Amino acid sequence: MKRPWQGQVEPPLLNTVPRHDPHNPLCPGATRANGEVNPHYDGTFLFDNDFPALQPDAPSPGPSDHPLFQAEAARGVCKVMCFHPWSDVTLPLMSVPEIRAVIDAWASVTEELGAQYPWVQIFENKGAMMGCSNPHPHCQVWASSFLPDVAQREERSQRAYQSQHGEPLLMEYGHQELLRKERLVLTSEHWLVLVPFWAVWPFQTLLLPRRHVRRLPELTPTERDDLASIMKKLLTKYDNLFETSFPYSMGWHGAPTGSEAGANWDHWQLHAHYYPPLLRSATVRKFMVGYEMLAQAQRDLTPEQAAERLRALPEVHYCLGQK
Amino acid sequence: MKRPWQGQVEPPLLNTVPRHDPHNPLCPGATRANGEVNPHYDGTFLFDNDFPALQPDAPSPGPSDHPLFQAEAARGVCKVMCFHPWSDVTLPLMSVPEIRAVIDAWASVTEELGAQYPWVQIFENKGAMMGCSNPHPHCQVWASSFLPDVAQREERSQRAYQSQHGEPLLMEYGHQELLRKERLVLTSEHWLVLVPFWAVWPFQTLLLPRRHVRRLPELTPTERDDLASIMKKLLTKYDNLFETSFPYSMGWHGAPTGSEAGANWDHWQLHAHYYPPLLRSATVRKFMVGYEMLAQAQRDLTPEQAAERLRALPEVHYCLGQK
Ligand SMILES: O=P(O)(O)O[C@H]1O[C@H](CO)[C@@H](O)[C@H](O)[C@H]1O
Ligand SMILES: O=P(O)(O)O[C@H]1O[C@H](CO)[C@@H](O)[C@H](O)[C@H]1O
Repeated sequence: MKRPWQGQVEPPLLNTVPRHDPHNPLCPGATRANGEVNPHYDGTFLFDNDFPALQPDAPSPGPSDHPLFQAEAARGVCKVMCFHPWSDVTLPLMSVPEIRAVIDAWASVTEELGAQYPWVQIFENKGAMMGCSNPHPHCQVWASSFLPDVAQREERSQRAYQSQHGEPLLMEYGHQELLRKERLVLTSEHWLVLVPFWAVWPFQTLLLPRRHVRRLPELTPTERDDLASIMKKLLTKYDNLFETSFPYSMGWHGAPTGSEAGANWDHWQLHAHYYPPLLRSATVRKFMVGYEMLAQAQRDLTPEQAAERLRALPEVHYCLGQK
Repeated sequence: MKRPWQGQVEPPLLNTVPRHDPHNPLCPGATRANGEVNPHYDGTFLFDNDFPALQPDAPSPGPSDHPLFQAEAARGVCKVMCFHPWSDVTLPLMSVPEIRAVIDAWASVTEELGAQYPWVQIFENKGAMMGCSNPHPHCQVWASSFLPDVAQREERSQRAYQSQHGEPLLMEYGHQELLRKERLVLTSEHWLVLVPFWAVWPFQTLLLPRRHVRRLPELTPTERDDLASIMKKLLTKYDNLFETSFPYSMGWHGAPTGSEAGANWDHWQLHAHYYPPLLRSATVRKFMVGYEMLAQAQRDLTPEQAAERLRALPEVHYCLGQK
């Protein structure tokens, strides 16, 4: 953290997103790439991605002739979910009931696609720095015919911990962090936000329910309201950290779904990961490059320092307060 | 690849690096952050990083009280290696003998630090997009008291393959790619460059010796000359792809060193990875974000398509040809 920085500086955020742009394919009433016209939606809006990375009918690569050349078809569907009809808001600037509607939509799409697919990945790329190509507040949902790599790793670790210690890894982990306190960012009646012990991104956080919950659809109405409120607080702190619309990639992980949904997945605990790239300011990011790609992640500040800074920030958004 | 791109566009490269800048701490004769003055070097130049991420005397975190909270000291040293006295050249613009001098310096530093440390990671972050904060041509060398995560993964895979198949994984892999040809980019008497079957970055490549070589210092003079020449060709193709100084992170992996250097590491094969971020043009990159961070890497073009494009490019640098 003491190194002078003469490297890449990100362009400052120009706050010139119009509330409605008829040429933006995510806006209500706009025409999309496939010619379909969006409804004049006034809450959330879910539709098929016009440029899907996964398709339900991907062909099989055929049998392999060598152990080092193994391939399998990756089948699935890709959807886009708009959070709000306006392009110039983000989750922290939305009201708690509006965020609650997003949570309900996340739960429904998990149920809908989880009926067929073993993994439903909900993720949000926020900000141009995180590869987001459209400023309209939205996330994506990619459902796949297989457990992706990260899901497999979490499955293995959680299963092994449960079989060795007789309780879910993330239940015990959350419990320990509540006792230790030094990595906590926010707590509410039903939720915890903390900078995990294993964090690699400077201001990475983990969002965990206190109760043992395997998947989003299991959340009670009270837990959903409380989640909306703690998300608003966390994302407000993020924006306040460098007084910018804080970029990140985030996503939900819960027990696998699909035809195996009925199996015993009690070792799973629902959680969301937030991976924000910023390190020093609104324009100087952390680069996960040479050493990180070739050897191992290395942190520029400790998880405890990151948690302390996030804890100290106000819960009122810098754009809304003291006017 | 068909999606319209309205996202982040990188600033174009301004080719205004002066050949010599007395205020650049990497230049010959310049004063560094710690007050030391660089020699007037005229080849490569190795020195201790003034802001090291690893230190030889890092304190021990003490015993852990819980299986989920395990920490160990990470000890080591960080060095910087300048490739050339001039700031306005890059490896592809250097002569083959000048690149050969870099290879010799890589072999020496591996020997020197490998006498004490089990892992010596040589890596180059090239370009601002890859977090490089100084345009002077240089790489870094981080030696550690432990095998980093990626080294451990390669150790496990190579050891398992050797014990199952009786030969080194990467020897058989290189052999297969020579037969299959579709992922080859360049071949020479002693080396291969290919887009690996498992590549995640669009134009990722793997550089492999044809002979079974465990570590850089084992390379013969002929193999080093040939390496200098194939590196110049590869990096020239990279620059020619989008007519830009092509950014990447690259690094060398070889058998572990240190006190265990004498053990049997015959399952290891020396290799270099190149991870370049560009996807569509000099200013539009691939983002490894939401789905990639939370689920699994997804490619925008196949390794075979990438190899074909790289193969077709001239071996004369666009800045040097047809004047
Ligand atoms: O050492 P540098 O060039 O200051 O820093 C660069 O490389 C390091 C090692 O990959 C990274 O940890 C930094 O994030 C990156 O900016
Ligand atoms: O789907 P988008 O927003 O076009 O694309 C973005 O998210 C994808 C999923 O993480 C990435 O593969 C792309 O590199 C990124 O630009």
